[in-house]
Amino acid sequence: MTYCVGLRLNDGLVLLSDTRTNAGMDNIASYRKTFVFEKPGRCVIAIMTAGSLSVTQTTIARLHDAIAAEGADETTSILEAPTMLKVASLIGDTLARTRREIAARMDMEQQATASLIVGGQRQGEHMRLFLVYPEGNFIEATDDTPFLQIGEHKYGKPLLDRVVTPETSLADGRKAVLLSMDSTLRSNLSVGMPLDLTVIERDACAISHRQRIEAGDPDFAAMSAAWATALRESFRNIQI
Amino acid sequence: MTYCVGLRLNDGLVLLSDTRTNAGMDNIASYRKTFVFEKPGRCVIAIMTAGSLSVTQTTIARLHDAIAAEGADETTSILEAPTMLKVASLIGDTLARTRREIAARMDMEQQATASLIVGGQRQGEHMRLFLVYPEGNFIEATDDTPFLQIGEHKYGKPLLDRVVTPETSLADGRKAVLLSMDSTLRSNLSVGMPLDLTVIERDACAISHRQRIEAGDPDFAAMSAAWATALRESFRNIQI
Repeated sequence: MTYCVGLRLNDGLVLLSDTRTNAGMDNIASYRKTFVFEKPGRCVIAIMTAGSLSVTQTTIARLHDAIAAEGADETTSILEAPTMLKVASLIGDTLARTRREIAARMDMEQQATASLIVGGQRQGEHMRLFLVYPEGNFIEATDDTPFLQIGEHKYGKPLLDRVVTPETSLADGRKAVLLSMDSTLRSNLSVGMPLDLTVIERDACAISHRQRIEAGDPDFAAMSAAWATALRESFRNIQI
Repeated sequence: MTYCVGLRLNDGLVLLSDTRTNAGMDNIASYRKTFVFEKPGRCVIAIMTAGSLSVTQTTIARLHDAIAAEGADETTSILEAPTMLKVASLIGDTLARTRREIAARMDMEQQATASLIVGGQRQGEHMRLFLVYPEGNFIEATDDTPFLQIGEHKYGKPLLDRVVTPETSLADGRKAVLLSMDSTLRSNLSVGMPLDLTVIERDACAISHRQRIEAGDPDFAAMSAAWATALRESFRNIQI
C-alpha cells in the first residue's frame, strides 16, 4: 500500500508521500510516488500516486510524453493547460484511459487501479489541490476540508482532523503531515520509509522545498520519539 | 460499520463496542453489539459483533437457543464447554454455519459477513480473548499483541500500539479503549454512540463491570475534550 497526504493551506501546499510498493507481502520495493512538473514562475504541478504501479508509472510517463511531444498544446500538455481545473481534467483522462487499457488485459478478479493527489498553481490563479479517482473524476480540497489523503489514510486522519485548518502555517503543516505519516508507519507495515516531502509556497509558482527523508533520519526519529512520549504522557494525564 | 476493541491484560479483560448499525447511509439504527453469557464463579463469556446484523443476531440467538435446549451439553452449549478454546470453536462453527446459510440466499455480489471478538474465562483456566473470522477460524490475543479489534479498527490503532501492554492496569485499559473509540468516532461517521463497556476481572469468572455510555455523557465528553486539547498541545510542543 501507500500513504500520501496533501494540505492546501493559505500559505501554500504541503505534500508528503511514502515510497513502499509491494506485489504481495514478499515482493517489496521502494518507488518514488511524488512527481513534479514546473515552468518556474509560471506553473507548478505536483502529483502523488497510490495504487497499481503499472497504472501510475504509465500515467506519469504519458503526461511527460505529452509535454515533450511535438505540437504539445493546451489540450494535451499539463504545463500548457490554461487552468488547474484543466490540468486535473487532463490528468484524470490520462489515468482513466491507462487504467481501462490495463484492466482490459486482466481477468475479472484481478484489479489494477490507482488514485492521485494533484496540487499546484498557475500564475494568476489560486493554488488548488485535487484528489483524482481511478475513473478520472475528482474532488477538491476546500476551506472546510483543507487536506486530502490517498492509500492507507485512516491511521493518520485523527491527528489531521484535530490540528489542520487553512490558517495552519507551512511549518506546522509540515509537522502535521510528518506526524500523520509517523502514526501510519507505526501501525501499518505496508507503508514505509523513505519519505518525499514537497512544499509549494503560495504564488511562488515553483517548488519551494523538496526533501527526501531516509530511514534513520535523526530529525524524523527524534520527532517520532518525542511524539510517542507526548502521547503516552497525555494518556497518563487524562482523567476518566 | 462498527468499532469493537478488546484488551487482554494481566488483570483482566476490557471490552468496548459502539452501537451504530446502518443499511446504507440513510438507514441508521442503534443496536447493542456486546453480549454476555455467565454462570457466575464458574464461567463468563462476552461476545462483541461486527458485520451484517442478520448474521450476528442469528448467531447470538442460536448460541442462546443451544444453551437453553433440552439435553444441552458440552458439545452444544458454550456455558458447558470445558475450555475457552472449545467455546471459541463452538461460536466459530455457529457463525460460519449462519453465514453460509444466509449467503446461500443472496446474489453473488451481495455480501453478508461478520466477525466476532470472544473473551472470557472458565474456572481453573486462564482468561482468553479471540477474534473469530467469518469462516469460523480464529486467532488469539497474546502478550505480544494484547488487543484485538474488529470493524473500523485503523483510526484507533495508533494509540493502542503505543500505550497497551499486558501490564496495563484495568483503569488504564478502560481509558485506552475509550480514547481509541474517541479517535474513531471523531474521524468516522459510521461508528456512533452510545457505547457498551464491559470489564471482566481476572479469576472473577463473572462480569465485574458493565456500563452503557450515552451520547452526551459528561465524563466521556470531558475526556474527549481533554484528549483533543492534549493532542493539540503536544503537537504545538513538538520540534521538527
